Amino acid sequence: MLPKATVKRIMKQHTDLNISSEAVDELVKLLEDIIKVTTEVAEKNAKKDKRKTIMARDIKNCDEERLRRKIIELSERTDKMPIIVKEILNIITSELE
Amino acid sequence: MLPKATVKRIMKQHTDLNISSEAVDELVKLLEDIIKVTTEVAEKNAKKDKRKTIMARDIKNCDEERLRRKIIELSERTDKMPIIVKEILNIITSELE
Repeated sequence: MLPKATVKRIMKQHTDLNISSEAVDELVKLLEDIIKVTTEVAEKNAKKDKRKTIMARDIKNCDEERLRRKIIELSERTDKMPIIVKEILNIITSELE
Repeated sequence: MLPKATVKRIMKQHTDLNISSEAVDELVKLLEDIIKVTTEVAEKNAKKDKRKTIMARDIKNCDEERLRRKIIELSERTDKMPIIVKEILNIITSELE
């Protein structure tokens, strides 16, 4: 398990507020979940390349992959696309006198 | 700094592949970035509620905020916006005729 004291110390570098121990627990849980998912995706990446070792680039790809999936998921969830397109057209046609 | 040996041990729970030390470094960097951004967003949350303590609920959903920031950062970095707008206009004007 990740050391809570260390996680709290790093948090303290970025805030002057107090930090409840449940907040540290919650962040530790999130970080461990990210380690799990990142490792699984990195493993897939390495196996696709027929490597037996996970490299730094597998980890990098994987955060980007997570982001890409999230963006696609969001774009599929939103119903605002027609509104966005209309907005773009409004801005362009405002060039007409 | 997060202990690399611990991060590697947790990774090992999710893969049988070898893990290069650069891969561990890369993941530690990512985790520390997540601690930073999560703490900053949690602080904002707590301050909005006029609290002096960051609570567990401030941490939840912060990961989404991190992704949101990343998406905005990407959109600011890309120089493809004019191309995208032209593409949209092409699709719309193809309705002519």
